[in-house]
Amino acid sequence: MKSSLYFIILLSVIVLFSCNKELDTISDPLPSWNEGTAKQSIIDFVNNVTNEASPNFVKPEDRIATFDNDGTLWSEQPYYFQFQFAFDRVKEMAADHPEWNDNLLFKAALENDMETVMKSGMKGLMEIVMTTHAGMTTEEFGQIVKEWINKAKHPKTNKLYKEMVFQPMLELLDYLRANGFKTYIVSGGGIEFMRPWTEEIYGIPAEQVIGSSIKLKFEVRDGQPVLLKLPELDFFDDKEGKPVAINKFIGKRPIAAFGNSDGDLQMLKWTAAGDGKRLLLYVHHTDADREWAYDRKSHIGGLDKGLDEAEEKGWTVVDMKNDWKVIYPYELNK
Amino acid sequence: MKSSLYFIILLSVIVLFSCNKELDTISDPLPSWNEGTAKQSIIDFVNNVTNEASPNFVKPEDRIATFDNDGTLWSEQPYYFQFQFAFDRVKEMAADHPEWNDNLLFKAALENDMETVMKSGMKGLMEIVMTTHAGMTTEEFGQIVKEWINKAKHPKTNKLYKEMVFQPMLELLDYLRANGFKTYIVSGGGIEFMRPWTEEIYGIPAEQVIGSSIKLKFEVRDGQPVLLKLPELDFFDDKEGKPVAINKFIGKRPIAAFGNSDGDLQMLKWTAAGDGKRLLLYVHHTDADREWAYDRKSHIGGLDKGLDEAEEKGWTVVDMKNDWKVIYPYELNK
Repeated sequence: MKSSLYFIILLSVIVLFSCNKELDTISDPLPSWNEGTAKQSIIDFVNNVTNEASPNFVKPEDRIATFDNDGTLWSEQPYYFQFQFAFDRVKEMAADHPEWNDNLLFKAALENDMETVMKSGMKGLMEIVMTTHAGMTTEEFGQIVKEWINKAKHPKTNKLYKEMVFQPMLELLDYLRANGFKTYIVSGGGIEFMRPWTEEIYGIPAEQVIGSSIKLKFEVRDGQPVLLKLPELDFFDDKEGKPVAINKFIGKRPIAAFGNSDGDLQMLKWTAAGDGKRLLLYVHHTDADREWAYDRKSHIGGLDKGLDEAEEKGWTVVDMKNDWKVIYPYELNK
Repeated sequence: MKSSLYFIILLSVIVLFSCNKELDTISDPLPSWNEGTAKQSIIDFVNNVTNEASPNFVKPEDRIATFDNDGTLWSEQPYYFQFQFAFDRVKEMAADHPEWNDNLLFKAALENDMETVMKSGMKGLMEIVMTTHAGMTTEEFGQIVKEWINKAKHPKTNKLYKEMVFQPMLELLDYLRANGFKTYIVSGGGIEFMRPWTEEIYGIPAEQVIGSSIKLKFEVRDGQPVLLKLPELDFFDDKEGKPVAINKFIGKRPIAAFGNSDGDLQMLKWTAAGDGKRLLLYVHHTDADREWAYDRKSHIGGLDKGLDEAEEKGWTVVDMKNDWKVIYPYELNK
């Protein structure tokens, strides 16, 4: 009798674990976060909206959380990593383009001379992006991105770009998903640039990645249908574009939104304007030693109006230097 | 001892049922489908791609199935149901538009005179759609759709439009989801027209509904951010548009696609062109008594090139008259 009782208990434990594999993280779901108001605001929010007895309870299907990518899930200095991808593409394509030697813009890109490229403004940047991201099929482009993300290294850290994701944010993504949230990326970066690796790096599948896009053309080539990437902007997923894209791709208003710059402000405002409890969070880059320190005057990831709004509305502001025990996952192995 | 053994067995049964609620449908997952090649091709395909020992096994995250809506999941005669929604809107808005009395197009819409409206061609139809679908926020529009879908009835059947969905297709949606598929709508119909009711009617959440769209503008009204619907086409999700939209919204190639007209042909071709086993299925409207019979020469839901392609490639063609025991769910209660 006693042994079968043990058996029942054992069975129940197995059932509990197989039905909720994340039980073991209940102890501390965010181990890389120091105790403080930022961490507490996240945990309070999640406890509140997942508690059926709470007036703020939200059904699982409406637990939508949207994350900016550059500067929110991975670093973005000294310039967006996708720009480096574009410059590396220019280098690979240069042999077929001898005319670039007489082109100031492409010559600068070839030499990683970001200052000259930046002087060309949005027009110059777009020209480089279009040249390097269009003129091939979506499958060909995806293959190029996959190869790049597995070998390209950041000049400062000498780590792969894909290793420069924020460990505390990975824990946050896991924590939200363990609590029934659907996590989305809503980034100004290219949708086709992110999708080949977001599942592996963030656990976010392609269909939950929203970003900027160029136009596509359906064509039949040698009897096979392909989607050809055209050198023409389709949608710029930044600022006012973020709520528009969220509405288009998801059709539901998020209850939590995470960003790091003024480009995310409209997404946070749109999220905040819904009924019920909301979590609005800004990652504030305050750690010049372990990462970078910048905000109001930065050309990349400027956070000015957003910082004022966050203070006025009482949104959560993460002080990277003081709120995060580690920045990158590889620090855990030290 | 014996009683605790019973208890263990009872517990195991509960565990089994809570971990796989769809077990009971294994007997016949498609009860409204007559035995035949169409039904068998579906079951063979699902068994094949979900069998880990099969060379055609597909991981759950890649089990993407896309469905056209009009004529595939619900009826579409004598004209797309969304047109009736637009005409009903014209009637409700008419009091504020006395000028419509002198407008042939809007007068025809007011009088449900589809012949005259159709004569105005795409231009006329678009004018009616823009007038009735724009000029308000997304939330206001969603509310209007919800009210309409819960009261508007079809003139022939006198049933709610939302009751005129195909029972065999509802079973197919359930069957695929029970086998780990993610089911999407990819329709030429309006994305904002479908989303308010697809979860209730098809079990498909808003974020898995793709459709045609008009442009949106982010605005702050009385301190509240809103998305205003503009009278300008954003994307027409038909023909070549379907593979483009699938790539944009999902970022993965479906392994199964379901349609009923030439407007779905590119989606089926795009799906067919991937590696591994695929299921391509056309619903052929052959039942003039219980539904409608039409194909090659129909102005709504014309199926001509698609029928040839299906025959040539050996795709599944559902003969509604002979393959389906019932058409609509309400026939089950007879």
